[in-house]
Amino acid sequence: MWLDRYDALLCDLDGCLIAGDRVLPGARELAAYAGERLWIISNNSTDTPHTLSGRLAGLGLHIAAERIMLAGATAIEQLAAEEPGTGICIYGSDAIKELARAAGLQLDADRPDIVLLTRDERFDYDQLNRAVRQLEGGARLVVANGDPTHPGADGHPVAETGALLAALLACRPGTPYREVGKPSPAMYRAVLARLGLEAASILAIGDNPATDGEGAQ
Amino acid sequence: MWLDRYDALLCDLDGCLIAGDRVLPGARELAAYAGERLWIISNNSTDTPHTLSGRLAGLGLHIAAERIMLAGATAIEQLAAEEPGTGICIYGSDAIKELARAAGLQLDADRPDIVLLTRDERFDYDQLNRAVRQLEGGARLVVANGDPTHPGADGHPVAETGALLAALLACRPGTPYREVGKPSPAMYRAVLARLGLEAASILAIGDNPATDGEGAQ
Repeated sequence: MWLDRYDALLCDLDGCLIAGDRVLPGARELAAYAGERLWIISNNSTDTPHTLSGRLAGLGLHIAAERIMLAGATAIEQLAAEEPGTGICIYGSDAIKELARAAGLQLDADRPDIVLLTRDERFDYDQLNRAVRQLEGGARLVVANGDPTHPGADGHPVAETGALLAALLACRPGTPYREVGKPSPAMYRAVLARLGLEAASILAIGDNPATDGEGAQ
Repeated sequence: MWLDRYDALLCDLDGCLIAGDRVLPGARELAAYAGERLWIISNNSTDTPHTLSGRLAGLGLHIAAERIMLAGATAIEQLAAEEPGTGICIYGSDAIKELARAAGLQLDADRPDIVLLTRDERFDYDQLNRAVRQLEGGARLVVANGDPTHPGADGHPVAETGALLAALLACRPGTPYREVGKPSPAMYRAVLARLGLEAASILAIGDNPATDGEGAQ
């Protein structure tokens, strides 16, 4: 099979393998055929590799946490490696906050050095105002990804980190920020480092030219 | 006094008369001197003229509800006059929803014909997704104003309707919408109609050239 030409398949998650909690046609077959050559590389920022691996196993897709690269978790890993002990306010899920604590970051909602914005399903008007103040106070902004939406279970768009970012930037136009997810090369580089492979022998599969296509190049 | 040249003074609220719950220097004196010639014309969309008049009285500023024009309440009045009985989903305060009901609009969170976005202090991630679906379903979008922020009590910016609009437009780029507040002429026209005056004899006071200046012209 032509897939055998590749040492690794880097596959996007939402819209490629699953949509919400629905497994897309052919995804189980691809996972079974590719086995350990299959990696997930996703702008997901609510899961950690472990919570996602468990969730996918419940859907019949068996992919080890070690082969799952996610934008939110990658942001945590990068910040913890670059600035251990830094005060950070995370707008995000409990799983992501727990990952940050375990990685040695100091969660600080009052005067953080860094504001990390992820797809926070509890984000609201008060938190928007709080984030604006933190940035006014000099905190640097890091965003898991700039995607405004991702495809949900029923095909309808679901608001993503980029939509929350749009509200924040409306309040503070021109605020500089660092983006960790696709199309930034950070997650791709991390996969190559773990694999010890050349990019030439890897196939990237995605449904979004602006993130999956651009990032893979 | 030179103010006596004008038959009416149209004054902005936030940043001109008050900031949050703080009365700004000179505001009480202006209100006392101008008396019934003083009107408020504001992009405020959380109050109704009656709730604001009461709130201002508590701060020592006595301005009758009849001389208060607000973007949220004006949106309700316009929609009720143009399309009585229309199904509308309002993202906004209880006071604004009550005003809509009293004006004969049908509050409908499921399949509304119109989505009215105001400065909803309870707006959150789930409501963002709900509004996106309502627009996908064909609802028309009306926004109280497009201001991203207004000045708060301590001088810090407070997120306004325009910041919530930015998140919505990030999810549905290019969605057409109707804007009721300044700089749209709707509220100015309503004041002129009530006054029966020519625009030439009116002074507009504001702190924002993009809304107060542009709208008054």
